[in-house]
Amino acid sequence: MNYKYHFFNDYSEGAHPEVLKILGDTNLEQEIGYGDDTLTTKAKELIKKAIGNSEADVHLVSAGTQANFIVLATILKPYESVIAPSTGHINIHEAGAVEATGHKINSVETTNSKIAPGQIQKVLDSHHDEHLVKPRAVCIAQPTELGTVYSKKELEDISKFCRERSLYLFIDGARLGISLTSSANDLSLKDIASLSDAFYIGGTKNGALLGEAIVLINENFKENFRHMIKQQGALLAKGRVLGAQFVGLFKDDLYFKLATHANEMATKLSSGIKELGFSFLADSPTNQLFPILSNSLIAKLKKMYGFYIWTKVDPEHSAIRLVTSWATTEKAINDFLDDLGQLSKE
Amino acid sequence: MNYKYHFFNDYSEGAHPEVLKILGDTNLEQEIGYGDDTLTTKAKELIKKAIGNSEADVHLVSAGTQANFIVLATILKPYESVIAPSTGHINIHEAGAVEATGHKINSVETTNSKIAPGQIQKVLDSHHDEHLVKPRAVCIAQPTELGTVYSKKELEDISKFCRERSLYLFIDGARLGISLTSSANDLSLKDIASLSDAFYIGGTKNGALLGEAIVLINENFKENFRHMIKQQGALLAKGRVLGAQFVGLFKDDLYFKLATHANEMATKLSSGIKELGFSFLADSPTNQLFPILSNSLIAKLKKMYGFYIWTKVDPEHSAIRLVTSWATTEKAINDFLDDLGQLSKE
Amino acid sequence: MNYKYHFFNDYSEGAHPEVLKILGDTNLEQEIGYGDDTLTTKAKELIKKAIGNSEADVHLVSAGTQANFIVLATILKPYESVIAPSTGHINIHEAGAVEATGHKINSVETTNSKIAPGQIQKVLDSHHDEHLVKPRAVCIAQPTELGTVYSKKELEDISKFCRERSLYLFIDGARLGISLTSSANDLSLKDIASLSDAFYIGGTKNGALLGEAIVLINENFKENFRHMIKQQGALLAKGRVLGAQFVGLFKDDLYFKLATHANEMATKLSSGIKELGFSFLADSPTNQLFPILSNSLIAKLKKMYGFYIWTKVDPEHSAIRLVTSWATTEKAINDFLDDLGQLSKE
Amino acid sequence: MNYKYHFFNDYSEGAHPEVLKILGDTNLEQEIGYGDDTLTTKAKELIKKAIGNSEADVHLVSAGTQANFIVLATILKPYESVIAPSTGHINIHEAGAVEATGHKINSVETTNSKIAPGQIQKVLDSHHDEHLVKPRAVCIAQPTELGTVYSKKELEDISKFCRERSLYLFIDGARLGISLTSSANDLSLKDIASLSDAFYIGGTKNGALLGEAIVLINENFKENFRHMIKQQGALLAKGRVLGAQFVGLFKDDLYFKLATHANEMATKLSSGIKELGFSFLADSPTNQLFPILSNSLIAKLKKMYGFYIWTKVDPEHSAIRLVTSWATTEKAINDFLDDLGQLSKE
Repeated sequence: MNYKYHFFNDYSEGAHPEVLKILGDTNLEQEIGYGDDTLTTKAKELIKKAIGNSEADVHLVSAGTQANFIVLATILKPYESVIAPSTGHINIHEAGAVEATGHKINSVETTNSKIAPGQIQKVLDSHHDEHLVKPRAVCIAQPTELGTVYSKKELEDISKFCRERSLYLFIDGARLGISLTSSANDLSLKDIASLSDAFYIGGTKNGALLGEAIVLINENFKENFRHMIKQQGALLAKGRVLGAQFVGLFKDDLYFKLATHANEMATKLSSGIKELGFSFLADSPTNQLFPILSNSLIAKLKKMYGFYIWTKVDPEHSAIRLVTSWATTEKAINDFLDDLGQLSKE
Repeated sequence: MNYKYHFFNDYSEGAHPEVLKILGDTNLEQEIGYGDDTLTTKAKELIKKAIGNSEADVHLVSAGTQANFIVLATILKPYESVIAPSTGHINIHEAGAVEATGHKINSVETTNSKIAPGQIQKVLDSHHDEHLVKPRAVCIAQPTELGTVYSKKELEDISKFCRERSLYLFIDGARLGISLTSSANDLSLKDIASLSDAFYIGGTKNGALLGEAIVLINENFKENFRHMIKQQGALLAKGRVLGAQFVGLFKDDLYFKLATHANEMATKLSSGIKELGFSFLADSPTNQLFPILSNSLIAKLKKMYGFYIWTKVDPEHSAIRLVTSWATTEKAINDFLDDLGQLSKE
Repeated sequence: MNYKYHFFNDYSEGAHPEVLKILGDTNLEQEIGYGDDTLTTKAKELIKKAIGNSEADVHLVSAGTQANFIVLATILKPYESVIAPSTGHINIHEAGAVEATGHKINSVETTNSKIAPGQIQKVLDSHHDEHLVKPRAVCIAQPTELGTVYSKKELEDISKFCRERSLYLFIDGARLGISLTSSANDLSLKDIASLSDAFYIGGTKNGALLGEAIVLINENFKENFRHMIKQQGALLAKGRVLGAQFVGLFKDDLYFKLATHANEMATKLSSGIKELGFSFLADSPTNQLFPILSNSLIAKLKKMYGFYIWTKVDPEHSAIRLVTSWATTEKAINDFLDDLGQLSKE
Repeated sequence: MNYKYHFFNDYSEGAHPEVLKILGDTNLEQEIGYGDDTLTTKAKELIKKAIGNSEADVHLVSAGTQANFIVLATILKPYESVIAPSTGHINIHEAGAVEATGHKINSVETTNSKIAPGQIQKVLDSHHDEHLVKPRAVCIAQPTELGTVYSKKELEDISKFCRERSLYLFIDGARLGISLTSSANDLSLKDIASLSDAFYIGGTKNGALLGEAIVLINENFKENFRHMIKQQGALLAKGRVLGAQFVGLFKDDLYFKLATHANEMATKLSSGIKELGFSFLADSPTNQLFPILSNSLIAKLKKMYGFYIWTKVDPEHSAIRLVTSWATTEKAINDFLDDLGQLSKE
């Protein structure tokens, strides 16, 4: 890759320097293994404070897929299933991880990757006896895999519906920070905690080297959860590594600052592109943008910048995907806009 | 813990500074995700060179339990089982991870945690038809969970036996460096690679923050192994983190230097304890020592140093376990020996 | 139930008397257990002859769901998936049995429960790397769950396509006899065997007390299949019970005679209903009919006959489902038509 | 096999004629499928009456392995294990069925296939944290796989112990009738029900064509158990087949009469063999006998009778296994004793 810069995704760099610093500063201190270290303990306290729930259980694991299937394998009985949008990460991009733990995903077609109570009800309506699985959980992502966000009203509706129907609500928060600091957002981290049964706070895509913080709200999920983590290979001997990430991210609200930065860079990039006269596949309130460019322009741009071609729009135009992150520099945005302006005039 | 020093285990500190340096030096370089980064690529090359097999496949994962069950779940058909010593990590200390992937472990009683062809043959003899599982793999640890090591002759015998009986041989190398640099060792890393079908090189317990390098020798195991890694939650978005560990460990033979240090510290500690007149539960050629002390002496020592009480020897004496590591200082050894000498005179 | 007759399904009665007779005649003969008895041996020979493939492996199990998941769990690696129509029995009516063995079903929307190569190709196109499952098998039912049948040309196309793409083709033949003797059929049992990698011949819905005969054509599937059967609880101690069913069904072509009868009764019933002026939800060439009646007429009919209301057609009309079987009597058909005629005049 | 008679096992014949008669008498009655038929309903009532517990849930399945793993998969969470004697059927002769549902079996070495609270306590003592599985159930067989039986006192002790330790007690009753009618027995079927959380009553080895009646006593196990049965392929479309077996067996205490007969034949056989001067490997109070004969005598006997050679006793003698059943005739016993007497004189 000899790109000036790449906008492939939000996990292209290592960790925010502040996170790395904690890792370095504490490196030679002797700690107890397997998550009973002082860093992990501190990280858990910071997270419980941030979500406003001192009774919650917090567990740090390495990866989002891991967080998803460990939680679902814990809360579902063998014949129970989870309802998710068909575009959901658990349904597509986890190589069948949930099914590998024995559970069916009832996928629901959506237009914008968000699901509503009416769609969940339809799944329930068609699952009435022992010849079918028994839907028991709903898994949504905030923001969704398409970068859309649930509003407070929408999340309240789903939450209320799930509680009435004895369905567990689990929120995949791989990019939770991005949604919480999006201009379209009216939810707080405390709302997420009070409206769901479990969720996870993604660190990997917001400045950590690795690490996702699973938060268990529902009492039923808590007992022996560490057994599940161990059995699924997610219990690190040096739990301090994960602890350091979340101490760094939650000590001085770095988590929110980094996500805010990513969103600001996206807004700046989006505005610039608009000013240059281009339109977008969809309005995105988060850090994923989908501008529509001519194929010839894309070809030229591709020699200078890294990004994915998302979808064809017409025979001569395609939408590309540009992702900003905590690490995206203003210089990179300015360069890209300059070059885009230049190239589009040629 | 206000211990002067603790000898609980070999994963009490973070990473060797050289490893941490690589992580820091490359931190803001943009890399492709999921293990296609330049660090991981380089780490794989270094490892393939070190094992003397350019055709091997190398995959980096986060934890030893993960390495074990992903390999076993890949190579076994649903009705196939793995033979292991009853003291094996997979049999006891992985919370049923192998069984959670659907496979039985045929455990074999041993005196020293090592198994020999004759014991494997007995398992085969009693598994003859479809009412029983079909043993298809043998999993041993080098060094074993008790700190003993297989000699070259012993490993050659097992390897030959397994190949004749169409059994796969998989070696759990969580502490592989320790065995390879032990005074009792006559095996090279290349021997390990040529005598087994798959093994892993443990990083976590030898100077890495986290990371185990799975090495697949047998062609049958290679196809689509990344699907297994992804499905089991072991594919890190920032694969560079794992890559950096193994670049650090294998660039200038640091891996062997660190393990050598751990063994030397163990030897020094062992000699000192012997000189003070104490005996040991067993002779250990590796970094785990089991000296026998009086219970009153243990009680005093426990106020100054961290260690586990391993087993009772008689009503008044117990064996304790002391573990050294890449990070153990000579000062810690000297302090411990001085204090032990002092306390034993009181 | 005080119905004159019921048309709920094709497994309302016990076994055809000829099958029961074999069970009785051989009852006190001493046999070897677990499927090594003379009846099972004979049944396998009869089936291999009927399918025209003496190299096939035949295994008798108790139930269709069992047959489906045992075959799929045998032929798929942990990360591999099976493609099936969304209406497929394995996708809906098996309580997540396939997922319980760890595998995802890639469901394909269809209009008539049949899938074509183009739809399979779309699934393949969207499954390109290790973040997704790897589709490896296609599972179709003949006849389908909606009573439609694949033509010889359609099945040849799917078979050719699957072989070119290294996909296994597995046919759920719970009602295979019905399709083979349907007026719409141009396939022979030998065609089924030569175009698929594995299939099963349903006994339960065609005159057996219980029993499905799994036929393995592909060499890869054969080794140690009995281990899978045993492990999944499907190996009956008195295998003779299953053997007797298939000896009865395949000794004198009873299997085809019974299915022919069921289809003839369906044709007679269908014609009679048409003559009375009613239309159908769909033309069915098999033993499931979906006549559309007024809701008031249905209410009256329901007091005399057993059947399921299938779907609403308009506010005043619904389609009901009537199923005939090997056991359906001409008298039952005549009575039903008489009563329907009578009630519709009221 | 041209044996005069064979004593291989207790499932060599079909069903007791009374059972077969019910199947025949009801054969053409139309019934609802999947266990909601009148025969199954009646069978459940008869069993609940026989066990003296009208609140129990009864479910009929086809095979013992199926009964075992469905119950265990229902009651255990993913990280929980079951304690069983190392000789247990679930540990050896089910091809890894329990592990295939994801659960470890903690096997306990025994001398006579029976386990006692002290042995269970040892397993609990060594399973203290999340690195190990969590033992949650105990599975014993009555009679055991070696033909021994638990006394009332022994079973009460285990039951009490399990309840105090929050362990579920599950009894594999594949040959339950044999133990209940053994001369060594002091337990009633009601005792079995009141002392366990779940058990099953084996039909296959006591006069049924197939069929095991799972009895769930513990309230926690009951909800949605039919989902588990369906998912594991154990829900027969013609549930009537299983219903007929247990109506036959429990209508007029046939179950107990048949088992009594098997035991009486065993006693008669045993006495005869003793009178001829032979000794036994062990005293067996049930229908499995292990007489010790010279190898030359065994060779001659093997030409006339079917039986397994169990184990070598010394270079010139071996123990054989003779099994009697509900179907064993007095004539077969007399013939065998006559021939044995004759052959031993030669």
